[in-house]
Amino acid sequence: MCQLLGLNCATPTDATFSFTGFCQRGGATDHHADGWGIAFFEGKGLRLFIDHESAAASPVAAFLRGYPLKSRNIIAHVRKATVGEVCLENAHPFTRELWGRHWVFAHNGDLKDYHPKLHSHFLPVGSTDSERAFCWLMQELAKSHASVPSVAELTLTLRELVPQISRLGTFNFLLSNGDALWAHCSTKLHWLIRQHPFQAATLMDEDWTVDFADINQAGDRVAVIVTTPLTRNEQWAAFAPGELKVFVDGQPVG
Amino acid sequence: MCQLLGLNCATPTDATFSFTGFCQRGGATDHHADGWGIAFFEGKGLRLFIDHESAAASPVAAFLRGYPLKSRNIIAHVRKATVGEVCLENAHPFTRELWGRHWVFAHNGDLKDYHPKLHSHFLPVGSTDSERAFCWLMQELAKSHASVPSVAELTLTLRELVPQISRLGTFNFLLSNGDALWAHCSTKLHWLIRQHPFQAATLMDEDWTVDFADINQAGDRVAVIVTTPLTRNEQWAAFAPGELKVFVDGQPVG
Repeated sequence: MCQLLGLNCATPTDATFSFTGFCQRGGATDHHADGWGIAFFEGKGLRLFIDHESAAASPVAAFLRGYPLKSRNIIAHVRKATVGEVCLENAHPFTRELWGRHWVFAHNGDLKDYHPKLHSHFLPVGSTDSERAFCWLMQELAKSHASVPSVAELTLTLRELVPQISRLGTFNFLLSNGDALWAHCSTKLHWLIRQHPFQAATLMDEDWTVDFADINQAGDRVAVIVTTPLTRNEQWAAFAPGELKVFVDGQPVG
Repeated sequence: MCQLLGLNCATPTDATFSFTGFCQRGGATDHHADGWGIAFFEGKGLRLFIDHESAAASPVAAFLRGYPLKSRNIIAHVRKATVGEVCLENAHPFTRELWGRHWVFAHNGDLKDYHPKLHSHFLPVGSTDSERAFCWLMQELAKSHASVPSVAELTLTLRELVPQISRLGTFNFLLSNGDALWAHCSTKLHWLIRQHPFQAATLMDEDWTVDFADINQAGDRVAVIVTTPLTRNEQWAAFAPGELKVFVDGQPVG
């Protein structure tokens, strides 16, 4: 099983604190050492960093921990290979363009023997069940809407599509188009909101405390979604199995 | 006008020497300071780094100059904005998936008022003429072949498609799917092959000499394609206007 991290923010936010703790799970404090990746939206633009080294040892991950990129939508993933070999084309997050927007997807779980009918123009480059599921979601979204719909309409469509995959296996995922971040839980996903009045938090995986009151403004607000809680002194809420939440501007909207 | 750099190699090769000289043209020795980008294929996998800072000043570019990624197909671009504002979604190279393969494209030139009929599923995210041209090429390639064709077949199709764009403006471009690198010249593009017996080369844009005999093996071979020659003591050949060349394993094949 892999681990997921998502941030959806009211204002451009750097993910250094959360990403640092998360990276430790990629080969140091946990065994998800088969690659990692992180995607940052900047407006409609996208930066995607992927690597088949472990996140804890990767020079690219070390660079990013020291060079904070600010973004309103961030999706990161550390991989424990279950389906598909360890190579760059199997590293999450995956990305595709639809309706002139970048879409980013990362998955935690197993969809064994999942070979959906991909009859359209979204085809997997690698050999993971995860990328096949992403391609199917993109294909079905494209069939459901002629151009980019509202977040609410997209959420309705996803509520119809996602159960068709999740009944076949474990399908915890994060999805974003830069406007919103969708998070679906099959088995395990947690979330919290950091907002005014901000407080201090201490990472579970590394001895590092940040007082968010020192670095945030009143209008800042960040939703953090992660497989297992990142900090020891914040209140993390668990998703219910089968729950799909959508986050906009740092808070859940559906 | 922007500048292009492409490397097509027989064996995985690091681009540090060429990329270092090339970066100096992004804001230091030349005025292409409106962003930059570089794409590295690793097998079917792809790493894409883009930035809206100048290549000469960018921390990401500095990191990459010190962390050599080896690849057989590399495309880099420094941008002088002519059409489309300076923002991340307008940074080259652009990428799309087609037939389960990543495609990478970078353009130098102007296609003023170029608005092709994009009736299929490749739509631009940003506002550049370059990304519109790439989307049109992908759309027309997808219509011409049901699945990934041979390099020779792709080259034939591109020879039919490219003149339909290049007659409308300046269309120097580099395109790769990880198997081959296509280079088209409207106005300005140069190339050379580095192979056994390797020799020393000195960058034009920075005081740095590398003796490639020291760092290469007998089987290594690299085709370098660039807008203006990168080194002062190598023999660069100029493309003819309208010429489309395709490189495989570090040498031209058509």
